[in-house]
Amino acid sequence: MNKIIQQNFKVEFNYNISFTEGVFDVNNPLLSNLLTSKNKNSTTRAVVILDKGMFYYHSYLIEQIQTYFKKCCLKIQLMGEPLMVEGGEGVKNKWSVVENVLDLVNKKKIDRHSFVIAVGGGAVLDMVGFASAIAHRGIQIIRIPTTVLSQNDSGVGVKNSINYFDKKNFLGTFQPPFAVINDQTFLTTLSDRHWRSGISEAIKVALIKDSLFFNWIEDHITLLNNRDPETMNNLIFKCAQLHTAHIGGGDPFEKGSSRPLDFGHWAAHKLEYLTNYELTHGEAVAIGIALDSCYSYCIGYLSENELKRILHCFNNLGFELSCPLLLDPLDINRINQKLITGLEEFREHLGGVLTIMLLRGIGQGEEIHEIEKSKLDQSIVLIASFQNKKLTV
Amino acid sequence: MNKIIQQNFKVEFNYNISFTEGVFDVNNPLLSNLLTSKNKNSTTRAVVILDKGMFYYHSYLIEQIQTYFKKCCLKIQLMGEPLMVEGGEGVKNKWSVVENVLDLVNKKKIDRHSFVIAVGGGAVLDMVGFASAIAHRGIQIIRIPTTVLSQNDSGVGVKNSINYFDKKNFLGTFQPPFAVINDQTFLTTLSDRHWRSGISEAIKVALIKDSLFFNWIEDHITLLNNRDPETMNNLIFKCAQLHTAHIGGGDPFEKGSSRPLDFGHWAAHKLEYLTNYELTHGEAVAIGIALDSCYSYCIGYLSENELKRILHCFNNLGFELSCPLLLDPLDINRINQKLITGLEEFREHLGGVLTIMLLRGIGQGEEIHEIEKSKLDQSIVLIASFQNKKLTV
Repeated sequence: MNKIIQQNFKVEFNYNISFTEGVFDVNNPLLSNLLTSKNKNSTTRAVVILDKGMFYYHSYLIEQIQTYFKKCCLKIQLMGEPLMVEGGEGVKNKWSVVENVLDLVNKKKIDRHSFVIAVGGGAVLDMVGFASAIAHRGIQIIRIPTTVLSQNDSGVGVKNSINYFDKKNFLGTFQPPFAVINDQTFLTTLSDRHWRSGISEAIKVALIKDSLFFNWIEDHITLLNNRDPETMNNLIFKCAQLHTAHIGGGDPFEKGSSRPLDFGHWAAHKLEYLTNYELTHGEAVAIGIALDSCYSYCIGYLSENELKRILHCFNNLGFELSCPLLLDPLDINRINQKLITGLEEFREHLGGVLTIMLLRGIGQGEEIHEIEKSKLDQSIVLIASFQNKKLTV
Repeated sequence: MNKIIQQNFKVEFNYNISFTEGVFDVNNPLLSNLLTSKNKNSTTRAVVILDKGMFYYHSYLIEQIQTYFKKCCLKIQLMGEPLMVEGGEGVKNKWSVVENVLDLVNKKKIDRHSFVIAVGGGAVLDMVGFASAIAHRGIQIIRIPTTVLSQNDSGVGVKNSINYFDKKNFLGTFQPPFAVINDQTFLTTLSDRHWRSGISEAIKVALIKDSLFFNWIEDHITLLNNRDPETMNNLIFKCAQLHTAHIGGGDPFEKGSSRPLDFGHWAAHKLEYLTNYELTHGEAVAIGIALDSCYSYCIGYLSENELKRILHCFNNLGFELSCPLLLDPLDINRINQKLITGLEEFREHLGGVLTIMLLRGIGQGEEIHEIEKSKLDQSIVLIASFQNKKLTV
């Protein structure tokens, strides 16, 4: 008997990314409308998980959340006090933290029609997203990202993850959120470092997809440096829009080997690890983009003027573009061998053929499948000389 | 700023369920063709995980698998000896076993274009499926189910799971396999108990969807009891086909509250737990179906003749339809209160409104949202009297 049954189906996913201010303000109906949008008549439950890093500046939230649910969400049962978790990459390293979230889901009887509401930076959203994705084969999660980086990139996509076996994002799933709410209130209390950090993902997506957006960023550097809220909101909106369009229009669950949105990320992931996450993701991405832009210049893909514009843009925003770990400890004209292993790890995560995004021009990415080490050596020398204001390109 | 970005996309999933004999025989090109179907030119890797319960009767497999890969899969690198795991529900209770599979994926550098090949019963496939689904956000898995139950039901669908916090399937994902291969060789060494056990899922799907298939099962009871291979293959094919069509044609990732394929399962899940998994899933499902069929009769949905046909069918196949745990220990005319909690747990897993499938006739399921305890009492008395050959319906 050599029969075959063919299975074939499509699953539709949709969610909104809403921009607002004061998400838990009793005069703001956005969250309440979302929570009751599917089941107008039946009572459902919700638990809230808060990032301690954010909470330090927003300690009024516990009371505000309780009041909000009491006054605005009559059909939603808020199950106890919010669970507090550490912010930052460390929260993704411990299975015990995932287990705390799973325990909350279990004890508070959160089912697949209930909600997990996670308020925090990208790492917290990644970890809570993973726990929510595997409990009961997927609890609905509402993400409320609180940093520039999570509002314009990691928090608006379809992925979640934790680190395991000392490998970044080794465990995770593709699980679109129920909804994303970007609340600009949280940006006001970010440190300058974290305010700046997330801008590198906007530069990244502009460089590979939208030269006009890159021009716009160049024109708004002073306003961004002065922490003008409206300028940042516009940057986040445009960046989130470009990311969302790319994910929905392409290969959302990454079945291929191509990761265009990970321009500059092969080196960034490795640098984060090598610095024990002392570099933020955004800072590492800035260095990774500088490296791959220099590489694009070295192989003749990018003009001198275009390269200068990219490096100056980062520089004027206050990013460091070099890092001692880029360089071989014994020969500063060569790239660090430890960094090179990042290329293979990058390939390994998606599998298949090595696929690295480079630039053919500003706003125009192009993928290649091989990297020449000697050109990487040239690239790190270029970056170092630029950083020392002796740019010789 | 109250802007909104709408995300909306569809993801297509497809896989084949192939029926064969001697999947690792060097003269059988099926597996080899599957492994190279996507990447004809590049080398990929594979690891194999074997169920010890099955391996006891098929110890030739290790050598056969090595020979098969050496001779038939030149582009596939088999990464070391197969990993052996315990068979049966216990394998789903330990995180350490999941971790062993994750460790294998990590150490053997299995990426998202490589393969995990799992050979075993439903519990092993569930556990390996879960580990594969979360490693690197999803490794391709080829399931080779080795029991009637896994070949006709659990192994051909899109779910995986492990037990956690003492709750069945508390953790899991929806992750369609790369392919499923049903190899009839493995059925020959099943105990009579496991040969019979999986038939209850075929009866289940016939009862809710296909009266002609139920007639066919009634007509083939003797051949099934005599372990006729061709009859069993036909039963498995038809059952797998009905399951596959239902999943693909409906709500594959179970976004609603309805679980039509879980007819008879609310009591079954609880009975498995209450007997510490001494009842097999199929045996528990037979009792669960008997209970819900009696209930359907008690509320006037099913005729006396139809109920008798169902109970006789199970009986003639050798299933026990009663179980002491159905009854209240202090009053054998009442249903066990512990069993009743299974209704709420069943609701909780998917969330939303309680939705229980009953029968309006043979081949015709109908969902209801409320269960009357007094009718459940009547139902267990009916089953007990039938089991004692004093059927009074």
